Amino acid sequence: MNAQIVSIGNEVVAGVIADTNAAYLAARMEDLGATVVAHRAVRDLENEVMAALTAACDSAEVVLVTGGLGPTLDDLTREAAAKLAGVELVEDERAAEMLRSFFAARNRVPHPVNLKQAAIPQDATCLPNREGTAAGFAMEYQGAKLFFMPGVPREMKAMFEDEVVPRLRERLTGGGNFRRTLLVIGMGESDLGAKLGDLMQRGRNPEVGTMVHGGIIAVRIIGRDKDARAAQEKVEADVRRIREILGHSIISEDESPLPFVVAKLLEENARTIALAESCTGGLICAMITDVPGISRFFLEGVVAYSNDAKVEILGVPEAILEKHGSVSAEAAKAMARGIRNRAGADIGLSVTGIAGPGGGTPQKPVGMVCFALADDRGVIAREERFGGSRTDIRDRAAKYALNLVRLRLLGVV
Amino acid sequence: MNAQIVSIGNEVVAGVIADTNAAYLAARMEDLGATVVAHRAVRDLENEVMAALTAACDSAEVVLVTGGLGPTLDDLTREAAAKLAGVELVEDERAAEMLRSFFAARNRVPHPVNLKQAAIPQDATCLPNREGTAAGFAMEYQGAKLFFMPGVPREMKAMFEDEVVPRLRERLTGGGNFRRTLLVIGMGESDLGAKLGDLMQRGRNPEVGTMVHGGIIAVRIIGRDKDARAAQEKVEADVRRIREILGHSIISEDESPLPFVVAKLLEENARTIALAESCTGGLICAMITDVPGISRFFLEGVVAYSNDAKVEILGVPEAILEKHGSVSAEAAKAMARGIRNRAGADIGLSVTGIAGPGGGTPQKPVGMVCFALADDRGVIAREERFGGSRTDIRDRAAKYALNLVRLRLLGVV
Repeated sequence: MNAQIVSIGNEVVAGVIADTNAAYLAARMEDLGATVVAHRAVRDLENEVMAALTAACDSAEVVLVTGGLGPTLDDLTREAAAKLAGVELVEDERAAEMLRSFFAARNRVPHPVNLKQAAIPQDATCLPNREGTAAGFAMEYQGAKLFFMPGVPREMKAMFEDEVVPRLRERLTGGGNFRRTLLVIGMGESDLGAKLGDLMQRGRNPEVGTMVHGGIIAVRIIGRDKDARAAQEKVEADVRRIREILGHSIISEDESPLPFVVAKLLEENARTIALAESCTGGLICAMITDVPGISRFFLEGVVAYSNDAKVEILGVPEAILEKHGSVSAEAAKAMARGIRNRAGADIGLSVTGIAGPGGGTPQKPVGMVCFALADDRGVIAREERFGGSRTDIRDRAAKYALNLVRLRLLGVV
Repeated sequence: MNAQIVSIGNEVVAGVIADTNAAYLAARMEDLGATVVAHRAVRDLENEVMAALTAACDSAEVVLVTGGLGPTLDDLTREAAAKLAGVELVEDERAAEMLRSFFAARNRVPHPVNLKQAAIPQDATCLPNREGTAAGFAMEYQGAKLFFMPGVPREMKAMFEDEVVPRLRERLTGGGNFRRTLLVIGMGESDLGAKLGDLMQRGRNPEVGTMVHGGIIAVRIIGRDKDARAAQEKVEADVRRIREILGHSIISEDESPLPFVVAKLLEENARTIALAESCTGGLICAMITDVPGISRFFLEGVVAYSNDAKVEILGVPEAILEKHGSVSAEAAKAMARGIRNRAGADIGLSVTGIAGPGGGTPQKPVGMVCFALADDRGVIAREERFGGSRTDIRDRAAKYALNLVRLRLLGVV
């Protein structure tokens, strides 16, 4: 099955945003065993949209379209699709009902202009949007199947997975690609590449590739075979080899993000945690509280930016701050013990460092961060240096801290 | 000047990587006063590359091409370009010399296959690559000017800025586009569209478009005119009208994110702040501490997930939690007063709510969030409902809270 991807929107074409939708859809289509032959991005202009759709239908059996389904005047994908099919736009009852519920849940009444988002070309099939107000739709044109989805990535992804994939499966004849992704922390991409060696050889099947994002490396293993089961077996064999090589550096084998992995370990070990953050400024708390149901394991966090807060809330002895400074292993240990005692938690975790851009010294440069973890086995401390911007340093430090909890709960440190 | 962008490479088309090159080039071309009319991405297949280049030349005076200039067999952009022009590939002396120096500087000798990267179509102009080994080139085809650059973003950017931009400037006749972006909070995209009305009319110049991301709407005004000054004046006139219509809903006129706007207001008003967060779980602290130098204004934050923490650290009376519950305006007020007193801050801000997915009741459904702000003028409280996922509810609540501080510092509430 050949597929093309068409992105509609002035912001994409003018480079205001990068077209991540196209990459997502292309990767998913390849996973499903389809071959993506091209992408195109065109502006919100009716004739250009129509021309792009027509050209895409020429060389593909499936055309995935995103964008231009908003409520404002500059959104005209549905008009262009209707014109292409030579039909009128009609309000879809189910979509209108969903739109009204969406607004009702937010104590709002839809503006008449919003109801435009419930209109689809006559005879098209409505694709409900459970994440937003723009209805999608599926239609056929010149023998190709077209799926129109919103440009908002969250809405697009939900609609693609829930509505488009099941409709494509009928057409995909088994076989295809099998993909696994392992998330790895604690090393650079080139070090990882050296460790994996021949697994990453070009042209090999499965194909093993790495991609780094926010200090975490995704190792992607894609196996291809006419037989779906054989593709999976090839991939699983690689996963076993990679597991042997990387050990505890693998955070998750199911793409679970680090905070979710830590939350699961807290639950499995029936441990509670409390946090004392300085340079990460609440980032670790924010990451861990993104996990639903975490309130059973996460008790409290203190963002102790000022020394006063460190002394008064966490009970850090002033003598330690005076002697070692607030960025020191000693201060971190006192903060970890302090928050553990204050909250009555099983684990107290602390971070203190210099996120920059100012505040660095030759002894304590920007990027230096101290960590401590206190539990019933004692207190451990770590000192690390991180590079990059303020945002990078805070992000890497927050993940390092969460990983320290993970390794402690696994009994590795 | 109309421009098209063509990206060549299996990785882009199959979604292994997102096409950030296209976004970079499009944004730079628009800045330079050109109009980007479309992007396309095609695979490393000679006939598909030739077809894409031909189609792009049909509707653009300038075509920017990236990718397919590597040393391996699957890179065939230069072969496709030569075939299109009906000429042979010839080794460019300067490019070959640069390539040899590149390897020499790394104590390596180029493999014969590398010299392929110094070949360009006969009569094309070589575009030297100071960041890598692939030479770029410029050529004309059917009246359009084509620029071929490597796919590696660092190499592409250097070549574009050093080699392509100077060659385009001759053709750009002064004039061009002028762009402003206003960030707006506190309304839906459709409400905003209704308020802006005819400003968003299709085909109008300036073009006014909206894009929503994380509850914040970017209103983009792009004016086009042969005279650069006239373009700017058109845009500024629109900005004045939008300012009258939207008033304090405009967070910033220079794309400053909300936390930076709040930090600036704290500085201008010489006020300190302390935060008490429940459902947002540290997110507001994390957002505000992302601003460099914030430690002068942000004193501390408490993530009081448990009632114990609310009572012990913030001094919230147990009677309030028992009578009204921890998600109530009364609890929010006590938290705001409590953190203000504890920290000795000018402003105490609190958030307590139900982020879900569990924990909702008919009276207090998921998405209900209470806010309070305590300062020397008293205590104000707000109750809001937010929709979406747990992540969305937390994000919107954090921004609502920061906006409450902004409005208070502006004297609006």
